[in-house]
Parts: sequence; structure tokens; C-alpha cells
Amino acid sequence: MPDAELMQRLRELLGDKGVREEPHPDWPDIVLKPESTEQVSELLKLCNAAGQPLVPWGGKTCLVDGLNETCGELALSLERMNAIEEIDTLNRTLTVQAGCILQVAAEACEERGLLLPLDLGARGSATIGGNVATNAGGNRVIRYGMMRDLVLGLEVVLADGTVVSSLNKMIKNNTGYDLKQWFIGAEGTLGVITRVVVRLRPLPQSQNTALVACGDFGSVSRLLGWLDANTGGTLSAFECMWPSFYQYVTREGSLHTPPLPQDYPYYILVETLGSRPESDAEEFERVLGEAFEQELIVDAVIAKSESERHAIWEIRDDVLGFMAQGPCAIFDISVTVDHIPDFVAGVDAFMDTVPDSYRVVFGHLGDCNLHLILGNTNPVVFDKQKLEHGVYELVEKFGGSVSAEHGIGIMKRDHLGCSRSDTELELMYRMKRMLDPNNILNPNKIFTADKVA
Amino acid sequence: MPDAELMQRLRELLGDKGVREEPHPDWPDIVLKPESTEQVSELLKLCNAAGQPLVPWGGKTCLVDGLNETCGELALSLERMNAIEEIDTLNRTLTVQAGCILQVAAEACEERGLLLPLDLGARGSATIGGNVATNAGGNRVIRYGMMRDLVLGLEVVLADGTVVSSLNKMIKNNTGYDLKQWFIGAEGTLGVITRVVVRLRPLPQSQNTALVACGDFGSVSRLLGWLDANTGGTLSAFECMWPSFYQYVTREGSLHTPPLPQDYPYYILVETLGSRPESDAEEFERVLGEAFEQELIVDAVIAKSESERHAIWEIRDDVLGFMAQGPCAIFDISVTVDHIPDFVAGVDAFMDTVPDSYRVVFGHLGDCNLHLILGNTNPVVFDKQKLEHGVYELVEKFGGSVSAEHGIGIMKRDHLGCSRSDTELELMYRMKRMLDPNNILNPNKIFTADKVA
Repeated sequence: MPDAELMQRLRELLGDKGVREEPHPDWPDIVLKPESTEQVSELLKLCNAAGQPLVPWGGKTCLVDGLNETCGELALSLERMNAIEEIDTLNRTLTVQAGCILQVAAEACEERGLLLPLDLGARGSATIGGNVATNAGGNRVIRYGMMRDLVLGLEVVLADGTVVSSLNKMIKNNTGYDLKQWFIGAEGTLGVITRVVVRLRPLPQSQNTALVACGDFGSVSRLLGWLDANTGGTLSAFECMWPSFYQYVTREGSLHTPPLPQDYPYYILVETLGSRPESDAEEFERVLGEAFEQELIVDAVIAKSESERHAIWEIRDDVLGFMAQGPCAIFDISVTVDHIPDFVAGVDAFMDTVPDSYRVVFGHLGDCNLHLILGNTNPVVFDKQKLEHGVYELVEKFGGSVSAEHGIGIMKRDHLGCSRSDTELELMYRMKRMLDPNNILNPNKIFTADKVA
Repeated sequence: MPDAELMQRLRELLGDKGVREEPHPDWPDIVLKPESTEQVSELLKLCNAAGQPLVPWGGKTCLVDGLNETCGELALSLERMNAIEEIDTLNRTLTVQAGCILQVAAEACEERGLLLPLDLGARGSATIGGNVATNAGGNRVIRYGMMRDLVLGLEVVLADGTVVSSLNKMIKNNTGYDLKQWFIGAEGTLGVITRVVVRLRPLPQSQNTALVACGDFGSVSRLLGWLDANTGGTLSAFECMWPSFYQYVTREGSLHTPPLPQDYPYYILVETLGSRPESDAEEFERVLGEAFEQELIVDAVIAKSESERHAIWEIRDDVLGFMAQGPCAIFDISVTVDHIPDFVAGVDAFMDTVPDSYRVVFGHLGDCNLHLILGNTNPVVFDKQKLEHGVYELVEKFGGSVSAEHGIGIMKRDHLGCSRSDTELELMYRMKRMLDPNNILNPNKIFTADKVA
């Protein structure tokens, strides 16, 4: 339990609405809910002086167990700091408090005719601050980049309560070290993000979607380069599904009618976002026709209506359904495109040794990002650690990344060394020690507390 | 003079080719030229132990006096480490040693059918390492981003000789802190960049260029948003010239025939890079026609041949010619688009108070980046400090950046506070102290040595 005197002072600072007890079996029972950057700063000063650790809460998607294994932390939620402060249509920027929900911000921008490019499954619960802290990826990275690429400015509060305000709105600004980069993707371990300036883009006027099939992986990788070269900057999705994915999702009795036969080696959802509804559709069809003539693809179905587009995306997005087969581990890894076939073959060989197993492979192939769902139809034999060990050993073998877009949290902490050298890790520890010497900010995430003691 | 024993050991380490005396009135006379990362590491260990400062040399463009005011440094040139190690056409990456000249790397990529997106005037002398160290911008930022956005991986040697190898080739990699970001744009003060992995793009197949005129600044800023929204991701240049620029460059007796009359308020070079030579030209003309109908532009000339395109770009690029008018100061600043008219009006009002003055305004408006050339036709009254003071006071007033793309170096050191708060500066000092406690790496750049003593 936190120190009684500290709690008393936090209650005085934050008021009744600012300190809530929300009992939970795994998460901290006490949640601090400041309403301003000043309150964040003051509460951090108090906690830092008392050595009281905090775990910042975003949307709590928890894909890397970021909230589990807490020991004595207070939770810090910015849900009351959720204001959309400015949508600047001339400079095309959004200034927003960190607690704002991604979807709320995106819809507000859309109403003003602008696109907030980040989009991901958890859009309805994820916060902008969480998206920055985890350098979120999602559905349109191939076109607009990760969250890091969209952030122009940040306001961050350091562990000692120092407010670092770098709310830059300019695209070019080379004035000394780019401090915001230190905090993006640091998973809340170096500072608490309180405000963000996001670069907005014009709203696309056309969206063209197809599901295509490739006969071998060489064609898949050539198709990626070829489409990127022939769609003039509009390619926004290149989502690859292995037959294990496609066959299961579109199986008899499932919710989906298979738009293409089920016996192709690779299925790819391709999408472009353009500015000319009339000509873009025609052009999209022509480009896919050429890909067919060049034998890059062996089959294709182009969405001719909004409902057909949704039907294709729903196949790609129907990920939760797999888990009905039995307990599983979900992986979010990267390997370079040339290594993907051997990596997937390695996963197959490994899973062949696991009894009563099932496997699903899919991913944002345009970004080198694969997701794997590996599980057991017989719950009794499920061994998560064994599955993780098997996969991360392969990731290390192929020089890949144990976390493409979800971060490290607690779940991947022990596997960080597969993708990062001791020298790199030591630099991370030094940074953590410099900015958070008492280790109060999200301790034990990314690396364990003893590394920075 | 450096310590004799240190020099002896450096000569033993680097050999005859690795230590050269190149007398120069302003720059260090002794240049170290290592041929490998290992040599860079060893020489840094020696210099760090001896407290011997170093100034890393790139292409020596020197736009922010990065090489002047040296006091006892040894120069460190990576010109012998200039190998193009790999052009990976499948993953579309370039792995290159830091001393490689930008143009050499770009041409090698082009031969393999790929685009190295960074392009700038000094392409024939600037090195990739220098481009990373300064987070270079240039001609295509609006389409492909700054150098930071193109770097996938880095190898850096720290002041104490530690080699940090983060030669990542994957687009998505959220495994702990993104260390490379610390060194990009740090102007060689935190580490010596030895190797870089650059993300490549498909070579554009079409290039459409026009010079357009706008009647007022409101139209200019609306045109930027409108073109971005209506060219489907292909807009690559939006270069604005004020009449002071256009009229002088195309004056009677100049090298250039004015493609448009000389009495418009704003001239803009617009360019798109697309993938469909046939339809893109038609589309470009149609979009500009619509802009004319919507009264965003009042006149336009579209390049119909490669020589017409060159003629337009040569007007934009004929910057050195201005300096024939007399001594001048060159500025590289950013302000948000909404503030540009007031900022330029402020510069005009200020320059009206300067006797025998001339002024030129132009810039990468799509990136908020203005360049100013302010000088005196009468050399006797030229007062560079006064001009700098006048401009940076205006930059601070409008919340702008004293360096958009050239960095701080020595020239802008005293003005960094116009764009950065004391809190931000203190964080920079702390980082410098952590990574280079003896202050041997490019001391006195960005901030003076006493700040980190």
C-alpha cells in the first residue's frame, strides 16, 4: 500500500475526482486522474520524492501485459485530460491532450476535412498518449508511417515533475536534439506524455481494395515492390494471409463467403487511397490487370462496393475467431521480406513438433510485420513459454524484431536480447537512469528494475 | 597542438594514410582518416583518454560555420570509409559507410532501379554521414520526409569508443528505445556515425513541373492544401518565390527568360512525382486547370519538356547570383504557414530600416521552411549581427525555428534560445554529459563547452 501521508497529499492535490479506488484483481486499485499538466507535474514531484512508482494507463489494450505484475504502483490515467485543443486546418495539425481516444480525435479531424493517419483495431479505446508511448503502427503504415512519423510536437512531464514543452507544429525544425524522439516508443518509462501535436493529411477521396492470390512467395515480394512503384504513392495496405488464415476464416459455417478459392498459397489484401474517385478505380483495375499479365498474381477480386470492401476487410480483421480453437500465444514480429519464407517454414517445422497444435500466419507484409497465432486445440498441452521460446529463437536467427508494433511491456522483456545487443541495452539503461533515477515511471517494463538500480 | 605521445599512438593505429597534415587557415591542420569502424573506435578511445577534442568532417558545406572557431581539435574525416556495402533490391534498403558522397550513393541506387529520396544542392560533396548528423532536408521533403524519416539503421561510435550497432533494415521495430533517433540531427556531438541503412523507394516514372502565380498569400496557403489533397500523394515540391526573388533572377541581362510576367505577388514551383507517364501529365494539367477555375492561381506555365523543366528549376536554384549584389547573411528558418505573411512583413519593415539593403525571400513552403538572403549593396554598412538579431527576434515572436534544415553549428548557437526553452536546453546538456562526459566530440557546436562542463 502506498504511504498514507503521500496518499493524503495526493488527495489534497487532485481532489475527489482525481483519486479513485477501482478494485481489480491484477491492476492497481488506486487510480490517479489528474485534470491538467500542472497536476501531473505536482503529483510526479510527490511520488518521486516518496519513491512511489506509477504505471501510466492508456487504453489498456494490454497486448504485451503492460499492466500485469504490478507491485505497489499507483495507476496514472489521463482520461480527464482528453480535450481536442486545436484542429488547425491551415497548418494541418491536431493539438490534443494525451487522454483523448484515437477514434474521437480521428472523427473530429475528419469533420474538418482532414485525416489523422493512424488507424488500428483498438481505435475505440486506445488513447493518443498511449499511441505515442508505444509508437503505434496499424493499418496504414505503408502509406503514412508509424505514430513516430506523425508526431510534430510533444509535452512530456519527467519523473521529477519537470514539464518539457516541445509543442512544435512545423515540419522542419533542426534546433538541437529532437527531444520528442526520446519519449516516443519508450512505453511511459521516461516521462508522462500530456499533450501531442499530430501532423494531419488530406482526407483521401478514393479507396480501392482487392483481394489477390499469389502462386509463390517470390511473386508476393515482387508484387509489393511492383505495386509500390506503379500506384504513385497511394498504396496504403498490403496485408498478407497464409492459407492457414484464409482457409479457417472462410471455412464452411464461418461468417465469411470466400471471395477467392481456398487453395492458393498466398492471399493479399491490397488497398490504395487516392484523390480521384473516377480515374483511381479504373487505374487500380488496370494495374492489377498488368500484375496478372506479368504473372505476379494468379487470381484477384476487386471490391465493387462499400459492402464488398467491408467483406474483404472483415476476413482480414477476423482474428479473434482463431482463438476459439484453443489457448494460444499471439506474436507481433518483424523479419525482412527476404527471410519471411524461411522464417515461416521454421515456424511450421517447430509447430509440427508441438502436439495438438494450430497455427495462423498473417501480417502487414509491406512493413515486414508478421503476426502469428500459435496455440493448442487441447488446452492441457498448451505451453506458452515453449511457444515463445521457439518463435523468438527463430526471430533471432533471422535477425528480426521481437516486437514490430506492440512494444515490449512485460511479456517480451526476457526476449529483448534476441533483437538488441548488450551495448544497445546498456544505453537504454543509462537513459532510464538519467531521466528517472528513482525508477518510478512504469518500472519493470521493457527491462526489469534491477537493470537500472 | 595535440599531445605528441597521442599523435604517435594515432599514427601507429591509423598508418601513413590515416593521419594527414592539410594546413588550412581556419580548420584543423591534422586530419584523421580511419578506414574502419574498429579504427574509429580505437582512435576515440585514445582521444577520450587524452581529452583530445575532434571535429567530424562531412562534405564541409559549412552553412552554419560548423568548422570555424576550432581550437585544438583534430579533424575526423570518414572519406576512406565510403563504401556502398549493399543495395538490397528486395527489401529496398541501402547500407552504406558514412563517408560516401550522397550523389554517388543516389546514382548507385538509381542504377538498381531505386530512389534514394534525399536530394539537395550539395549532393556532389555532402556525405551520407553528414546528412544523418544534420538531419538534412532538401528538395523532396514534402513527399519523402527529412533524412530522419529515411534512416532505418545506424552504426555509431560513442566518445569512449563503444560501437553501437543498430543496423536495422525493418520498417517496424519497437524493441525498446529507438537509439538511432538520439544521434540523427545531433551534429556529431553525441557519437560518430560510421554506417547507415537508408530506406529506398521506387524510382518515379513521371515528373510534372509547373511555375504558377498566386494573387495573395491566402491563395498560396490554400493552394498547398488543395494540391496535396488532389494529387494523391505525388506532390513533391512546393517552392515559393517572392517577387524580390523572381524579379531579380529573371531581370534583363540575367541568364533566365521569365516564364511568367514579373508583377505577380507570389510564384510557386510545383512538382509531382508519379508512376504513370501518360496519364500523370494530363492529370497534372487538369488539376492546375481546376486550381485556376477556383481562383487559387492566376497564371501558370507547365513544363512541356525536360529543358523547360530545367529552366524553371534553374530559376529556383539560382541562389548564388543574389550574393553578387553585396555581402549578405543567409537564413534558414521555419514558421507555421499562417504566420508567414506577418513574418515576411516584419522582415520587410526591419530591412526598410537598414541602409543600402537588399532582401530575397523564398523557401520550401510545403515544409514551413523559408530561406532569406539579406544583405547590403554597400559593403561598408554590412552588419551581419544586426541582421541576425533582427530576423531571429521575429522568428521568436512568431514561435518559429531558427534552423529548419541546416542545423545550429556555431552560427546559430547564440540564437538557439529563440526556439528552445531553458528546460529543453538543459535536457540537451544532460544528454551530452551522459554520452560525452569529456566533451571531445565536436565541442562548442549547438551549445558552448561551458554548458556541459
